[in-house]
Order: sequence, then C-alpha cells, then structure tokens
Amino acid sequence: MTESAAPVRVIEKTSAYWRVLFDYPPFNIVDATIFQGLQDLLARMDSSPNLRVVVFESANPEFYLSHFDLTGKIGNIMTAVGPSGLPILIDTFVRLTKSPVVSVAKIRGCVRGVSSEFVLACDMRFASRENTRLGQPEVGVGLHPGGGGTERLPHLVGRGRALEIVLGANDFDGDTAERYGYVNRALPDAELDGFVDALARRIASFDRRAIAAAKRLINQVSLPSADRFLDSLNSFQTALTWSESQRRIQALLERGLQQDREFEKAWPAVLGTLLDKT
Amino acid sequence: MTESAAPVRVIEKTSAYWRVLFDYPPFNIVDATIFQGLQDLLARMDSSPNLRVVVFESANPEFYLSHFDLTGKIGNIMTAVGPSGLPILIDTFVRLTKSPVVSVAKIRGCVRGVSSEFVLACDMRFASRENTRLGQPEVGVGLHPGGGGTERLPHLVGRGRALEIVLGANDFDGDTAERYGYVNRALPDAELDGFVDALARRIASFDRRAIAAAKRLINQVSLPSADRFLDSLNSFQTALTWSESQRRIQALLERGLQQDREFEKAWPAVLGTLLDKT
Amino acid sequence: MTESAAPVRVIEKTSAYWRVLFDYPPFNIVDATIFQGLQDLLARMDSSPNLRVVVFESANPEFYLSHFDLTGKIGNIMTAVGPSGLPILIDTFVRLTKSPVVSVAKIRGCVRGVSSEFVLACDMRFASRENTRLGQPEVGVGLHPGGGGTERLPHLVGRGRALEIVLGANDFDGDTAERYGYVNRALPDAELDGFVDALARRIASFDRRAIAAAKRLINQVSLPSADRFLDSLNSFQTALTWSESQRRIQALLERGLQQDREFEKAWPAVLGTLLDKT
Repeated sequence: MTESAAPVRVIEKTSAYWRVLFDYPPFNIVDATIFQGLQDLLARMDSSPNLRVVVFESANPEFYLSHFDLTGKIGNIMTAVGPSGLPILIDTFVRLTKSPVVSVAKIRGCVRGVSSEFVLACDMRFASRENTRLGQPEVGVGLHPGGGGTERLPHLVGRGRALEIVLGANDFDGDTAERYGYVNRALPDAELDGFVDALARRIASFDRRAIAAAKRLINQVSLPSADRFLDSLNSFQTALTWSESQRRIQALLERGLQQDREFEKAWPAVLGTLLDKT
Repeated sequence: MTESAAPVRVIEKTSAYWRVLFDYPPFNIVDATIFQGLQDLLARMDSSPNLRVVVFESANPEFYLSHFDLTGKIGNIMTAVGPSGLPILIDTFVRLTKSPVVSVAKIRGCVRGVSSEFVLACDMRFASRENTRLGQPEVGVGLHPGGGGTERLPHLVGRGRALEIVLGANDFDGDTAERYGYVNRALPDAELDGFVDALARRIASFDRRAIAAAKRLINQVSLPSADRFLDSLNSFQTALTWSESQRRIQALLERGLQQDREFEKAWPAVLGTLLDKT
Repeated sequence: MTESAAPVRVIEKTSAYWRVLFDYPPFNIVDATIFQGLQDLLARMDSSPNLRVVVFESANPEFYLSHFDLTGKIGNIMTAVGPSGLPILIDTFVRLTKSPVVSVAKIRGCVRGVSSEFVLACDMRFASRENTRLGQPEVGVGLHPGGGGTERLPHLVGRGRALEIVLGANDFDGDTAERYGYVNRALPDAELDGFVDALARRIASFDRRAIAAAKRLINQVSLPSADRFLDSLNSFQTALTWSESQRRIQALLERGLQQDREFEKAWPAVLGTLLDKT
C-alpha cells in the first residue's frame, strides 16, 4: 500500500506542519482500519521532534468521518490496549490530547458518534458553515457515546447543551455548533481552508517547547480522567448487547446505512420514528 | 382537588412523554404548595417505568414561575428532608437532575430566583425570544441564591457571566440568556412550542435504558456536590435573618410585589434604587 | 507623587464605588510599578468597609494595559511573596478574585499577556466592540502564560478555544471575545461607559454582606487552585531562560516593541514570521 492510498494519509507540508487526509471510500466509516491508521500516525508523531501541528481533514467533502462501523468491523479496539495502557479506542484519543503536537480538526461533511468524539479529542475544531453535520446520535440507536463524548462535551458546552446534543441525538450545523461551543468557529466554506492553513503555519513557526508547555498546563485543568472514559466505554460495551440497540442497528442497516449515500448523509433525521410501524 | 385544578398539573401526552403545567394564580409564586406539587410529581415519575421526558411550562404566559414567596408561605422546605436525605428545596432539584427521565423547561415570562434555580436543575432550557425575563435578583434583595444558582451557573456560563448574573441581580432576555449559555436556545415565540414538542417526541421514542445511561455519564462530570448546595442553603438561611434583607423585602412588598401585576413583572428594575429616599 | 499622577489612580466616585485608572505613559506597560500600584490598591480596598465595586479602566484608549515589560523592569514580583503567601504576581490576581469587593474590567485598546491575565482575574469583563485587542501572545514569544491565563481560560471558554487563544497567540477583537466567553459582553464603544457605570452604581447600592456571600459561593466552584498557578509560574520562569524565548524577545525589541506606537499596537500580527530571514 503506497502512502497515497492509505485511509489515513499524511502529507508533510513541512517537518513542522502535517496535513492528515481521511480517505476511506465510500463514506469514511470508522472501523479497525481507521484506528490502525491513527495509531500508526500517533507513533510517527511521537518520533518527529520537529513537528508542531497536524490538521485533520477529509478527502471526501460529504463525509469527514461518518460513524462507527455497525457491521462488525471494529476489531479489538475496545479490548486490546494501546501504549497508554488504555483500550485502543480511548488510547488513541487520550494520546492525541496529551501529545506535545497541536491537533486541528478542519471539518466538512458528516461527523457523527465516534467521529464527533475524534474531533472533540482534537485541540481545536473549525467547521464549514454550510457543510457540517455534527452530532452524537448514539442514544437514538439505543446506545450512548462510549469514546469520550459524554466526558468532553459538558466541559465545552455546559451540561444543558451536552444533554441536548446527546439525548436529542440529532445533527448540528456549523452555526449552531459554534454558538454552543461544540466547535471553535464555523467559517464560510470558501474561507475555511485559508483560515486553518494560516493558523497552522503560524503555530508551526513557534517553538515546540513553548507549545508543549502551554498545552500541558491547559490540559491539567481541562482533561477528564481516564476512569471516567473507562466507565463510559464499559457502559457502551454493555449497551451493544441490549436487544433494543441491536433492533435499532438492524433497522438502520435495512434502511441503507453504510450503503446508500443519501441515507448515510441524513440518517439521524429518521431516528425519532425508526421503529414506527407503517 | 381535581387534577385539572392542581398548581403543578400533569398532562400525560403518552406514557413516555408528559407535559407539566404550572398554574397557580395570580403569578405562579413559588411556595410550599409548588414544592409539594413537585415532590408529588417526582414520586409519580419514579414509579412510571415507561416515562422518558417531561416538559415543564406555564399556564400563564407572563409568569413561568415568578420567585420565592416573600410573605412566609414557604413551609418547612428548607428544614424538612426529602427522600434523598437533603432538605426539600435541594432534594427536589437534585432528584430532578439525577432522574433517568429527561426534564425540559419551556420558558415564557418571568423566571427569577428560585425559579431560575428550578430551570437550571432541568436538563435543558428553551426560552421564548420575545418573552423571557430570567434572572437571579437575590443579591438586590439583600440575600443570595440558595437553591443551586451559585453552584450551577458557573459551570454553564463561566465565572464572569455567573458573577454578572448574580451580582447584577437583573433580568436577562432570551437572546442574552442564549448568548451566555444560561438557556440552550432562545426561539421565536411562535416556534417555541413546535420545537420543544418535536424534541420531546423524539426523545420519547428512544430506549429508556440508553437515555438513563447517557444522562448518568454526563451527570458524573457536570453536577455540583451536595456539600456545595448545603453550604449555599445554610448561608441563605442566615441571610434571611439579616436586618438589611428584611428591610429590602419589606420595601418590595410595600411597592406591590406579589400583588401588583405590573410591578411583579418588572421589579428587578428598581433594585438599584430600592432604598433611595425621595 | 500626588494621587492624580499615579500610574494606578483611584477616583472615589462614592465610598461604595471606585474607578481605577491605569495611566502610565507611553503604553501602560506592566512592570513592577504597576504591580506596586495594584498591591497598594488591594491594601486600600481591604481597609474600606463601605466599598462594593471597583471599575478598572485606562486613561489611554489605545492601551488598556499593554503587556509585561520585556526590558527587565519587573522587579521581584515572581519571587517575593505578598500577603497571601504567594508570589506577588499571583498574590495580586488571587486576592482580587477573593476580595469581597466586585472588580469590573472596562476594556478599550490593547490587552495582552499578563494584562489579559489581569482582566481574567477581574470578576467581570466588558469590552469596546470597535476598540479591543485582547490576547495571550506568549507562545509566539517562545514563552507561555504564567499568571493564570492557562488556568482561567479553559473554565471560561472551554479547552478548544483556550488552546486556540494560547497556541494561536493572536489578538481577539471584542465580538470574537464575546462569542468565545473571553469577555462578558462587547458593547458599542459609545455605550460602554454608560453600561458599566449603570451596572457599577447598581451593585454599589446593594448590601456588602450579600455581595460577599454570593461571590464566595461562586468562587468555591469556579476558582483554580493555588498549586496550578504556582506550576504555571514556575514553568514560565524556566521558559524565560530558554535561548529561543530570549531570541524572540530580542527580535521584538529590535522591531520597536515598547518604543514604536504603531508596532506596539499591532505586534502579535508579526509573530508567525518573527524569525524569518529576508
């Protein structure tokens, strides 16, 4: 596999500034392959002493990362542990937050469930005003967020908006996400690339020790504990065994999830009537 | 007393979705009767295994819940304890936050002091853009919030805005409350009912176990401790004995509080000159 | 030195409401003299039992307080301790937050680095919409915030926006600062004085015990610990010894920092290219 074909593809703009492209057709669905790509990336970041900033974006403007694979391709990411000693799912996100390297999510398209949890684990989030569908729809699937969403959202947006996002299980557009503090800013789509690139180049010009020290200090007052993440993940694994969640997952797959592009783009809209008989 | 005449009236739209109407003329003033109604409601919620969501609204568009009764009708809600072992005032709000059932405040009209603390204890708050007067005016009455406002506001709106709300002791309209994060959203009055009803129906269609698990996880990183609530309540009870607070309460009652509709709607406006001699 | 010539000048509007003017030409640069003025002010506040509120503003509309002096005039504020037992830099800000007196920052002009940390230590912040340049540019100078910025910002604006402010090291205008929660509100410049004066007069009319009790309760759930502040200050002192930071400080001074008015107003703009060779 050449680098240009990898689902998590690194473009080294300079030794200090990398872009990472998610490119995993058809819909950038998050499965064990994506997590392996992120683990490989974290190892490469850890051994790159000049690196300051990584911008995460999608090769597909309709799907940033769509959501967890619901057909069983998630491998052992909830049971095998990573370098931090935490399960791979949590290890990936926790190591990203604690890295001395700055992570920036540049968001276009659909970002739901575990994908929302990925952008919440990034240091900053900038979203397309016209083209963002961000949310935590798990409760509408009979589950709940298991990769940090319930831990990170309340600190960012407050308990009331966190409960609305998680219990309403619906999409948030760029403007609402900005108003709630879910993303740093929503920008007009035409300005998003320029804004993020200028910010990344600026950060890339700064001294790595200063960046790392500042990030460490902010982390000490703003990161949830590993215990809380493990509690969520355990509860999520239990929820996957419930017959109610299995019934909802089945209904979504039958309607076209992970297969039909239009349904994949809009599926949270049907969650409130998913099990209605006609 | 028939159900339709109760000051805290339950309308069971379905077994999963209830509306609760505050209807206690003339101004929905919060006294021991309102707290008894809320305690009865909580007991009924606890024994309703199909229930998912309760929307709290007012039968009177000018007053959601106005404020604590200042004429002595608050009974023993600060001394007698409820099922949680906490004083009724705190017990009511803490049990609401910890309930597996989702609580939504649909706000129109005046919501001040303990009433603001009630909506802060709800899981979500949606307010009429044109018709909301929300605040914690206690400091302007020589007191301070005693039912959780000082504990819940900083997490929602940050220390600076919490101090402005509490020390400024003034009303906030819907738009400012949204901008501050005091409410989830302010909506045009004509859209408020439709928005909240659609959200409630959606949540009511989800599985109760998933809702409860998600809410429990968010609560673990976002609820203040009982010790902090008790500290505030104790301090509030002391403040009620101060001659300064009694003098201000007396001045407000003499000006028409709890009797004159126009004064009841606008009284925080006079707090900055309440004791001025003419 | 007469009072009217002091760099930190007190105007006692009433015994309950003081204005404090920063007036330290040419640019209100923060050095040991400013901290001595603030220490004297705190002692005076502590012995003024009628005082309720202090509004901090600048005599110079272009510079509120500019930033830490980078030419060595900071005296012993990081090593000598104040009445709280903490180093003067931290002692000043911590005592301001814990004072029973309410502190309000009325912001016009440039407010960067330690000056941003001063306004973050105030109870509330109101900024001119047209004339505010607020930020924490330390990382762009090879340093990081050392006076509480990394501890206070995440609670106010969330981790993502705190990281953007600190790692981006750029200016924020009034509107963006309001949207982020960095300030309570941005107001049209023509309305700023009237708004803050009305709020201060209102608070000044309230009872001091009620104000102090409310502020104490909010502080208990919203103030960072002294340990975290000391960690930041220690790390900052180390960062000052790095050759990278010394090189950047030197480059800024050579370009006109602390001497050239136009450069002083706009210097964060050049931080991304500060060391580029031409």
